Amino acid sequence: MNTLGHILTLTTFGESHGPAIGGVLDGFPSGITVDTDYVRECMQRRRPGQSAVTTGRQEQDEVEFLSGLLDGVSTGAPIAFIIRNTDQHSSDYDDLKDMFRPSHADYAWEQRYGIRDWRGGGRSSARVTAPICVAGALASLAFRKLLPGLEIKAFTSQIGPYSTDPSKDMFFASAMTANNPVRCPDQELAAKMEEYIQGLRKEQDSTGGCVTCIVNGLPAGIGNPVFDKLEASLAKAMLGINACKGFEYGDGFLSASQLGSQHNDSFRMEEGRITTASNHSGGIQGGISNGQPIRFRVAFKPTPTIGQEQQTVTRDGRETTMAAKGRHDPCVVPRAVPVVEALTALVILDQYLSSK
Amino acid sequence: MNTLGHILTLTTFGESHGPAIGGVLDGFPSGITVDTDYVRECMQRRRPGQSAVTTGRQEQDEVEFLSGLLDGVSTGAPIAFIIRNTDQHSSDYDDLKDMFRPSHADYAWEQRYGIRDWRGGGRSSARVTAPICVAGALASLAFRKLLPGLEIKAFTSQIGPYSTDPSKDMFFASAMTANNPVRCPDQELAAKMEEYIQGLRKEQDSTGGCVTCIVNGLPAGIGNPVFDKLEASLAKAMLGINACKGFEYGDGFLSASQLGSQHNDSFRMEEGRITTASNHSGGIQGGISNGQPIRFRVAFKPTPTIGQEQQTVTRDGRETTMAAKGRHDPCVVPRAVPVVEALTALVILDQYLSSK
Amino acid sequence: MNTLGHILTLTTFGESHGPAIGGVLDGFPSGITVDTDYVRECMQRRRPGQSAVTTGRQEQDEVEFLSGLLDGVSTGAPIAFIIRNTDQHSSDYDDLKDMFRPSHADYAWEQRYGIRDWRGGGRSSARVTAPICVAGALASLAFRKLLPGLEIKAFTSQIGPYSTDPSKDMFFASAMTANNPVRCPDQELAAKMEEYIQGLRKEQDSTGGCVTCIVNGLPAGIGNPVFDKLEASLAKAMLGINACKGFEYGDGFLSASQLGSQHNDSFRMEEGRITTASNHSGGIQGGISNGQPIRFRVAFKPTPTIGQEQQTVTRDGRETTMAAKGRHDPCVVPRAVPVVEALTALVILDQYLSSK
Amino acid sequence: MNTLGHILTLTTFGESHGPAIGGVLDGFPSGITVDTDYVRECMQRRRPGQSAVTTGRQEQDEVEFLSGLLDGVSTGAPIAFIIRNTDQHSSDYDDLKDMFRPSHADYAWEQRYGIRDWRGGGRSSARVTAPICVAGALASLAFRKLLPGLEIKAFTSQIGPYSTDPSKDMFFASAMTANNPVRCPDQELAAKMEEYIQGLRKEQDSTGGCVTCIVNGLPAGIGNPVFDKLEASLAKAMLGINACKGFEYGDGFLSASQLGSQHNDSFRMEEGRITTASNHSGGIQGGISNGQPIRFRVAFKPTPTIGQEQQTVTRDGRETTMAAKGRHDPCVVPRAVPVVEALTALVILDQYLSSK
Repeated sequence: MNTLGHILTLTTFGESHGPAIGGVLDGFPSGITVDTDYVRECMQRRRPGQSAVTTGRQEQDEVEFLSGLLDGVSTGAPIAFIIRNTDQHSSDYDDLKDMFRPSHADYAWEQRYGIRDWRGGGRSSARVTAPICVAGALASLAFRKLLPGLEIKAFTSQIGPYSTDPSKDMFFASAMTANNPVRCPDQELAAKMEEYIQGLRKEQDSTGGCVTCIVNGLPAGIGNPVFDKLEASLAKAMLGINACKGFEYGDGFLSASQLGSQHNDSFRMEEGRITTASNHSGGIQGGISNGQPIRFRVAFKPTPTIGQEQQTVTRDGRETTMAAKGRHDPCVVPRAVPVVEALTALVILDQYLSSK
Repeated sequence: MNTLGHILTLTTFGESHGPAIGGVLDGFPSGITVDTDYVRECMQRRRPGQSAVTTGRQEQDEVEFLSGLLDGVSTGAPIAFIIRNTDQHSSDYDDLKDMFRPSHADYAWEQRYGIRDWRGGGRSSARVTAPICVAGALASLAFRKLLPGLEIKAFTSQIGPYSTDPSKDMFFASAMTANNPVRCPDQELAAKMEEYIQGLRKEQDSTGGCVTCIVNGLPAGIGNPVFDKLEASLAKAMLGINACKGFEYGDGFLSASQLGSQHNDSFRMEEGRITTASNHSGGIQGGISNGQPIRFRVAFKPTPTIGQEQQTVTRDGRETTMAAKGRHDPCVVPRAVPVVEALTALVILDQYLSSK
Repeated sequence: MNTLGHILTLTTFGESHGPAIGGVLDGFPSGITVDTDYVRECMQRRRPGQSAVTTGRQEQDEVEFLSGLLDGVSTGAPIAFIIRNTDQHSSDYDDLKDMFRPSHADYAWEQRYGIRDWRGGGRSSARVTAPICVAGALASLAFRKLLPGLEIKAFTSQIGPYSTDPSKDMFFASAMTANNPVRCPDQELAAKMEEYIQGLRKEQDSTGGCVTCIVNGLPAGIGNPVFDKLEASLAKAMLGINACKGFEYGDGFLSASQLGSQHNDSFRMEEGRITTASNHSGGIQGGISNGQPIRFRVAFKPTPTIGQEQQTVTRDGRETTMAAKGRHDPCVVPRAVPVVEALTALVILDQYLSSK
Repeated sequence: MNTLGHILTLTTFGESHGPAIGGVLDGFPSGITVDTDYVRECMQRRRPGQSAVTTGRQEQDEVEFLSGLLDGVSTGAPIAFIIRNTDQHSSDYDDLKDMFRPSHADYAWEQRYGIRDWRGGGRSSARVTAPICVAGALASLAFRKLLPGLEIKAFTSQIGPYSTDPSKDMFFASAMTANNPVRCPDQELAAKMEEYIQGLRKEQDSTGGCVTCIVNGLPAGIGNPVFDKLEASLAKAMLGINACKGFEYGDGFLSASQLGSQHNDSFRMEEGRITTASNHSGGIQGGISNGQPIRFRVAFKPTPTIGQEQQTVTRDGRETTMAAKGRHDPCVVPRAVPVVEALTALVILDQYLSSK
């Protein structure tokens, strides 16, 4: 349930207001040097509170490794790590104890389990993605040794009405530096997105968006047939991110209105190697990588926590209204960027290990 | 690899031109009466060769049950079934032995396994979806007993430039009869789609499309947290279908341009029960059903097999051209409709069994 | 439930009196040549009806491969195979429909599933081990390529009061030819065992026994820690065989009365390689092979089907008596020998693939 | 690899001399009240250093729960817990860095992973069983609600030459209080065992032994067919315990020399319920509980760490001798008793949840 992967498995645990969140990464190759600065950096990319466009909550996110490492090198034993929850204001959530927040998991989870950790979203808080980022950073470190040329880059490709030009995806992936708060490589667009988010903050509203991810340097022949296809495993991982509403790869939903003669990627020879003239397929055919860049896009709904007053009901079935107190995050998309990268690294490492 | 599910597992096997295809359904509840006419009907819905819009290949698809049933009732033992491959013309594919068809799995699979069953797509043929339909029919029969009100209905919602009105999804799901070859409940649109496909057949081209699926009657509280979310499991299953390029649920990619105040589904009371005023969420929150209809959409690329001449390369790295011989199927979308329904039934039964 | 293994998985299906039994072997390496004569020979070793010491039922056991092979070479796709049930006399079992046979699975299974295939033991018949032998033969063929020096040999080491000398285990494994019906390499003892079994046949009784298995040529470093230890996986597989009551490896239960100074296998150098002076450990330490021969023993209870009259009850709770009709098998142990070998091959191949 | 179970899963992590050991228990039912005193008591039973017969190392074993509980009640989210390693003297092990201890996992693990945590056995230390005891205590707490009559009791049934009378197993299980350091319910025998162990301590030697476990109150119908049989799952779990060399249930290896007419458990009626006249089967038939007490026995080899000088080799292939420094534990069997109970509770809860 709380485990991802088959050979490389990540089991996460923790609620936003419990003592700690964390994960256990099992099946990780031995002999990998763990650069803790790099892991910390990956963690910090996910962290809210870094700029004006994100939430004001200051998460410390200090990761502590508990096992699986000897003098900074992986031993093949499971790598467990925890991140203490420090900035908790559980009492802020007291009034949510007996109320279901619209479009949150509150009601569904209570129906499932008969009990619900109402403090800050509990197990369905976005905070549970922090351990994913730690594990993804470890997977990336493994690739430095196993597949040195591999590069996984995600960026914000849409926020509300502002979308990047899909024809520039490959350029963005290779050239970009995510040096703006919205993590959009198109700097002009990024400014507009930022302004849009600031406007929504004032209006106590929120917005959805998209993240695009490009994987360069994955050789052909990585993946598995039928049910554990590379794209199916990516889709499952992405749909597991909080607020995710959709996944498409290659030309995705656009393919539905294409002709075969447009969509097909014809093969050709280039410097003695087989390649394709185009990449409508997004680097995967029949569940297995074909040597072209992997390209996919993930959709996120607007943050359900908004400051405006909304209709809802109480646990005992009384209609009422509520409005989120305090500062809220009008757009989770920039924070999802490193999570998408982390999950991509985990899925591809798992598939890589099973394709050898 | 070739197994779907956790408690209810379906393992499929078989290539399009081997002796048989089939599956093993394990974890199926005991005491379920198996209506073989219903199973046969589900099989036939997937079968090509039923109308002018689909391929001319006549698949017999006679399903033989080998185990797990006693006098037509499930015993709790694994249910194995096979479908013999009868209409095989392997020699038709002789010229593909040493050539990679554009946008087929040929090249990627050969890189993965070092060997490839070149006869008609082998393991990556669309024919491998037939066992899924058998298993899905069994899951539907289980629901007749376990959740009598459950209804799973899929339909063609897009073919090339023709799309149904999403605001009519719920109406289509409840009222529709799939009595046209393209399986689109909007009869006027269906006629246009059919004409479009016929035109493409003449031009030796193909088209993509979308399937929409609605699940009515699933109670709140079915699903699992974090990685095995109901939507994540559905996404994984759908992306496993041949030619699938995308999955979205609820408002899907549209959510990316919505405001929180638009997207949120406020709770209200109706006849003493908690319900929501809208269903932008698509019936799932935090990975668990919320009692509203499940609604999702799946995108398919155009069939890669087209009669037009295409550039490609041979196994020994020589550039050449090829064109698919014989009749081909310009649109797989109508055939995908029963596969989407079958996978939905399997995923929901698996999640239902794990949520009890 | 009906699946063994993690990377290499075997899913079996079928009841003794349904249309067929069979299996699906997934994760099998591609490029392995399948010698069907060898597979058939492995099947025939398990088959009853070969000699006076076994049951009179004539099982044909013709295995048909349905998928995963191209011109006799594995493609990496799942290998499915079936064995038709031909020698069925379901009506022989009519009187068992409403009665629970002592020490059979009848009663427990009916409590589990509410329904029971009463014809010849159904899913808990010893016949379900036939697909295991097919899959084990395939695993052995894979080792011919992957680990040419590997040899897995099992033999009957006890029948009733007759036990082989454990100090000769290694000699038996290397030198023996299983050219007697009881499959005991000590020819003198084999004659006594045979005579003992013939006596029991006359008395309508049955006997238990043990199988010892030796694996030579497994390099050090194959296995997994903590829960999926090599010995734990072997134990699980063996306890899955019908009538199995125990598993021990190395010095096994004898270790309980040993001193550490007796049991420990000291290391030494031999021709530049690390080896041990003794092998009380049975070739495994901490779940991982240490390069010494793997050695384990499996105990089987007497066949519960006996011709003598026994007390039992009917499904509606009435006390009664019963006696098995027809010829019965007074000792399953010789038939278990190839099953032990097959499961050993499957477990070791799975662990080998996960240890690379 | 480091995960046990299918629906209820326990993933453990940690090395004896890393920062912490711990586990994640997923799939645990919601709504279970966690009595932390009980969990602590279960932990302390495993702890060494409690008496003269065990090792002198003082492990504190303070368990900290990190997730999955709300006000002491399980929420259905994964329950993670850690135990800090406090009594570490890593430098004690410095001389083992380049040497393989006889009959330890050192050599095999280094061959598997190319690297080895040499500090105190690392991942293959007996200390890794502590998290199993925590998780087992949680499973027992779940049974208090789910199956109030269930009782799981293990005891030391053999140490070296001293064995309990198997015919008293059921009496021991019901009446015993484990109020002696060797955890043997036969008080006279316990005194001899204790004396024996004290003698071995002086001789710098160690001894093996056996643990017997009885489960009372498990209803018929719990278990699974063919590969995930209840006995197979128990065997796998037990063989995962450090130093375990064998598993048998019911009459076990003794069955090999029995006749069918002796071994079979005839059915009879008792107070309107179906029962058996004897329990040679050990409460399981065909992988599924039959309502009789579950009874099994587990063999342990002598602790490989002994103070006597032994032959061994260094990592660079030089023959040498070594002797364990400091106090060592001449018999692990009493400490294994609570581990056997904990694993039994975990396996049965997993099988119970999958049999509903």
